Amino acid sequence: MSNLTNDIQEMAKRAKKAARILRILSTKEKNNVLLHMALTLDRKRDFIQSENKKDLLAGQEKNLSAAMLDRLELSDAVIDSMMKGLREVAALPDPVGEIEKLSKRPNGLLVGRMRIPLGVIGMIYESRPNVTVDAAALCLKAGNTILLRGGSEAIYSNLALAEVLQEALVSENVSADAIQVIPVVDREAVDIMLHQEEHLDLIIPRGGEGLIRFVSENSRIPVLKHYKGVCHIYVDVDADLHKATPIIVNSKVQRPGVCNALEGVLIHRDIAREYLPQLARELMAEGVKMLGCKESVQIVSEISPAMESDWGTEFLDLRLCVKIVTDIDDAFSYIDVYGSQHTENIITENYTRARRFIEEVDASAVMVNASTRFNDGGELGLGAEIGISTTKLHAYGPMGLEELTTRKFIVYGQGQIRS
Amino acid sequence: MSNLTNDIQEMAKRAKKAARILRILSTKEKNNVLLHMALTLDRKRDFIQSENKKDLLAGQEKNLSAAMLDRLELSDAVIDSMMKGLREVAALPDPVGEIEKLSKRPNGLLVGRMRIPLGVIGMIYESRPNVTVDAAALCLKAGNTILLRGGSEAIYSNLALAEVLQEALVSENVSADAIQVIPVVDREAVDIMLHQEEHLDLIIPRGGEGLIRFVSENSRIPVLKHYKGVCHIYVDVDADLHKATPIIVNSKVQRPGVCNALEGVLIHRDIAREYLPQLARELMAEGVKMLGCKESVQIVSEISPAMESDWGTEFLDLRLCVKIVTDIDDAFSYIDVYGSQHTENIITENYTRARRFIEEVDASAVMVNASTRFNDGGELGLGAEIGISTTKLHAYGPMGLEELTTRKFIVYGQGQIRS
Repeated sequence: MSNLTNDIQEMAKRAKKAARILRILSTKEKNNVLLHMALTLDRKRDFIQSENKKDLLAGQEKNLSAAMLDRLELSDAVIDSMMKGLREVAALPDPVGEIEKLSKRPNGLLVGRMRIPLGVIGMIYESRPNVTVDAAALCLKAGNTILLRGGSEAIYSNLALAEVLQEALVSENVSADAIQVIPVVDREAVDIMLHQEEHLDLIIPRGGEGLIRFVSENSRIPVLKHYKGVCHIYVDVDADLHKATPIIVNSKVQRPGVCNALEGVLIHRDIAREYLPQLARELMAEGVKMLGCKESVQIVSEISPAMESDWGTEFLDLRLCVKIVTDIDDAFSYIDVYGSQHTENIITENYTRARRFIEEVDASAVMVNASTRFNDGGELGLGAEIGISTTKLHAYGPMGLEELTTRKFIVYGQGQIRS
Repeated sequence: MSNLTNDIQEMAKRAKKAARILRILSTKEKNNVLLHMALTLDRKRDFIQSENKKDLLAGQEKNLSAAMLDRLELSDAVIDSMMKGLREVAALPDPVGEIEKLSKRPNGLLVGRMRIPLGVIGMIYESRPNVTVDAAALCLKAGNTILLRGGSEAIYSNLALAEVLQEALVSENVSADAIQVIPVVDREAVDIMLHQEEHLDLIIPRGGEGLIRFVSENSRIPVLKHYKGVCHIYVDVDADLHKATPIIVNSKVQRPGVCNALEGVLIHRDIAREYLPQLARELMAEGVKMLGCKESVQIVSEISPAMESDWGTEFLDLRLCVKIVTDIDDAFSYIDVYGSQHTENIITENYTRARRFIEEVDASAVMVNASTRFNDGGELGLGAEIGISTTKLHAYGPMGLEELTTRKFIVYGQGQIRS
């Protein structure tokens, strides 16, 4: 076994051992750790920022883009926001220990299901070092230990943040092994991590498509992953167009670079001639470049003809596809082919079609008369999110504290045996 | 692409296409299919049994054991039991469409979570052909399509059963692609199936450790697997010994060859001298061979000294390990090392230790004063089970209809946009 393999395996073992302690900490103990972490971050600003500077300098030497350097920087504002995040997570209800469906069986056994932590979570992520704190906080609150592997460009920052968090853990008499950052930037480290199936219970990758693909193809540990968000809005024949336009504009332009931004609008043929010119005017005023089907180009000449490769593309910028459809079933067929099971919305005042859309569309979030930008853990009421899952197993959509737990069966007997 | 790869990929694609229909079938439509299947099985007994005979003859030629041949046979009793199973699944409540946690956000959005089918389930199993019907019924009731790959020794039986089930599907105007059996016995077929991540949502393997390991190491699709059941009972110092003995005997001898049978008993030191001789007498009268720690051998000389490799072994026969422990924490440490996170039980009248055991032990089922044999979907109230998961993601413990579904977010807006 190589030294690297051995080192990572030892970290994974320690994480598993610490998980036995974490899973029985009381809510109060966990909250005390989180609040202590916020104070320690504040006290150690200088240390964090001087380590962060090493990453920033290295980034400048490597000619990272200004946007990348911006994401890397642990400014006072970013540290404040991490502290705020820690306090918010402390304030969230603790899902661990919650008992569901407790009921009596005919033989008198009292059977229920109790929420418990998953155990050890492996997080593999790129760039932003604040993920180190945000992810660690959520995992800890849900009673899990975490093994983090951040991007090479943030290595000094991530190690500094881990050191600060561990200081708070130890002050509260919790094992420092509850939060560990792998101090190796080698890609091999990821592969070794993905083979620790004896010690890790879940891998959450966050980053570009290349990373996600590498993780899902090589992991022996269950993975909760998020591919892409190709979100659509279907404007039904009975849409209230005064609702439709602001929703579409908001979904597209409020933050075009994120996964819940809008990438395609489907418009019912019977209203296209009236509505598309209005909509195009509003969108173009916001700088949106529209790509459309033949019919839509005939209605609004400023719309460029879409190429086949445009349909279903996650643009992450101000481009938007427009397609004219015959009816709701035609919209369903389009979404089935080009959607990414992320967020799909309908604008309609028609009760039956609203109900059909909610029931029949397969996506992590389906909405009536609302912006696609609401598919977000905070907006949907989860309090905070550790990612958005576009696979269906375990979690589908934003993942909050509950998604970092599982349920075991609990049985209260009186001497029952099976006959 | 090889012909085999192409064929299996085509089946997976058809299964995915059919899943779009299955996911919106009403409960009544699904139940009609299930009841129709039971009738068709009954009507086609001769066909099923003549195909089954081919497998039985081939099995005899291959010198399969009597037990194997017995598991392979589709006798009238087995067909009756499959029919009964279909009717029972029809009678179960349908989890699909159930809405949980519907509540209003501060901005007026009504947000909830709706249960939906997973999509396409791949089932890989060995020997018993009745699994074909049992698994297909549960998947269909939960709105999923299924791609089945049974053992080579049951190929004629599995194909015949699929043909019968498909006849019932078509009679009820549901696509025959909802239930497909891969007609290839080659191990390569499994590997190809495990790479259909674009079309399949979940793989459930059922069989020996070799199959499970192959599947989990090669699958690009999420896997719900069951390794082994090394179940323990801890007899606390405050145990009611009149409850303890029948529970231990039942857990060990009622059906020793199954995963929820007992493999180890932990006895508190302060009662060992009084209790172990009684317990040993009862167990030995049932033919149980006891293997114990040094101390237990000193108390009961008929107990054989256990070797290190005996601890944590899933015997699946009438052997049982006995270990004397200092207290409940010593029991926890033993279970952490040697348990398999399947079923762990305590016998006690002490309130605080009962509560500690329920909360602190990490296993798919933890029980107080009851037989380990109750860790079973039927016994725990799930109605029917498609397997028992010993990994924590998505499902932990017996998996019923609900575990064959997931939840999407549903959002009812009034024109809300994000600010």
